[in-house]
Amino acid sequence: MRMLQLIVSYDGTDYAGWQVQPDEKTVQGTLESAIEKITGESVRVLASGRTDAGVHALGQVVGWRTESKLTSDVLRRALNAELPHDMAVLDVAEVEPEFHAIRDALKKRYRYLIHDGPVRDVFRRRYCWQYRAGRLDVDAMSRAADALRGKHDFASFQTSGAERATTVRTVFELAIERGSVIEQGRIIERGGVIEWGRAGDPHLICLEIEADGFLYNMVRTIVGTLVEVGRRAQPETWPAEVVAAVDRRAAGPTAPPEGLVLVSVQYGN
Amino acid sequence: MRMLQLIVSYDGTDYAGWQVQPDEKTVQGTLESAIEKITGESVRVLASGRTDAGVHALGQVVGWRTESKLTSDVLRRALNAELPHDMAVLDVAEVEPEFHAIRDALKKRYRYLIHDGPVRDVFRRRYCWQYRAGRLDVDAMSRAADALRGKHDFASFQTSGAERATTVRTVFELAIERGSVIEQGRIIERGGVIEWGRAGDPHLICLEIEADGFLYNMVRTIVGTLVEVGRRAQPETWPAEVVAAVDRRAAGPTAPPEGLVLVSVQYGN
Repeated sequence: MRMLQLIVSYDGTDYAGWQVQPDEKTVQGTLESAIEKITGESVRVLASGRTDAGVHALGQVVGWRTESKLTSDVLRRALNAELPHDMAVLDVAEVEPEFHAIRDALKKRYRYLIHDGPVRDVFRRRYCWQYRAGRLDVDAMSRAADALRGKHDFASFQTSGAERATTVRTVFELAIERGSVIEQGRIIERGGVIEWGRAGDPHLICLEIEADGFLYNMVRTIVGTLVEVGRRAQPETWPAEVVAAVDRRAAGPTAPPEGLVLVSVQYGN
Repeated sequence: MRMLQLIVSYDGTDYAGWQVQPDEKTVQGTLESAIEKITGESVRVLASGRTDAGVHALGQVVGWRTESKLTSDVLRRALNAELPHDMAVLDVAEVEPEFHAIRDALKKRYRYLIHDGPVRDVFRRRYCWQYRAGRLDVDAMSRAADALRGKHDFASFQTSGAERATTVRTVFELAIERGSVIEQGRIIERGGVIEWGRAGDPHLICLEIEADGFLYNMVRTIVGTLVEVGRRAQPETWPAEVVAAVDRRAAGPTAPPEGLVLVSVQYGN
């Protein structure tokens, strides 16, 4: 028996989320079907965390216990041949048998994209919140986000239904920038003066957040709360009050799923 | 009677190309239907050029002659409300009545994306040629492209069926770079060391080309020809021979449509 660690990328648009559900097309179910076709094994795989319907992943981490003798490379190729084009296995690696994708995760990184221009972006339409209610004040959002950086009780940012033992989490990084896609603190795509057909779009807002863990809907509630500040419905001081309230009803609405992507999960070693 | 100039963006994946055809969903047909719904006018619009099935546009330019008294801004909003989400009108502007989208075009710019990594990119799958036959030598492709820069008879790069009066064209710019998206000579997205989930992907190759005009399938044939050099099936000196042959049979295959996007069209003033 071997334990394999898969890095899985998926466009969540056409899935009812990660977790297997009866009569629904899910990412987990699609992956498990591909595994069964290749190995004949009917297995349950374990992801670092569920993603909701419509949420994407660049680097979801999945643990898969198998009897298969096929090499990691052969399994990766076979899985990619079997999977639909909106899913891909980027890597298959053998790890210690005790590996547990949820329990062993040290840090997770999510990205959330908002497009607040007057006209939709047809190429990013599946991958961002197309916010059409006016230009957001990103500087105010970033200042307001100070209340969320560091170690806090994030109970106000948790959708009920999936309570955890503790709602205290540490946010190591929370960056918000307009016209850029930020990665690990490095700007990889910067917007400039608008010219038709330019991809470095000044209407694109990128929020990137890294923490030791996330509560259910935490990123989307943080985004929804900061957008209340960005659209000037709430003052910059408000997110600090939301944190202090320790009550979901104090926060802003949950931002839509299509803007959210699980970027990466970090483990020891 | 007014002449309006539209800037139109579209994801060409689900269209049988720009031009109206019976019983096919086309970009032109979809735009004309939206216009008819809003104004009641049954019109023909004129684009700067046709794009083939599966080819995209960031900034296609379209001339529309109308009796409508609605302002440009109202028309833009009404069109975007009517159009499907894979099309958008970025701008509507009033121009001189003589404006002719084909005849008046001075320069056009296309981009072609190739992904040559071992695993598909699920997020770019609709917008690049997923080349799975090995790593391409981009430096060799760029050197070989010297034969195509400047003024030449590009008859070898024209698919028959749409002959023009002259096959001489001037290529002002032809840039090829790995791990980057280049725009107007400026790198707006640069790839680095591969890390799971990074968008600045070293497997992404961007070709950007600007010319005073393009023959039918010219960009896709240029790409197909340079890829022959990139995969070392032909020497770097070969594209010069292809140009000199003035014969389509001398060139490489036509690259697939999904990697191609019409970036912008430049007019006088």
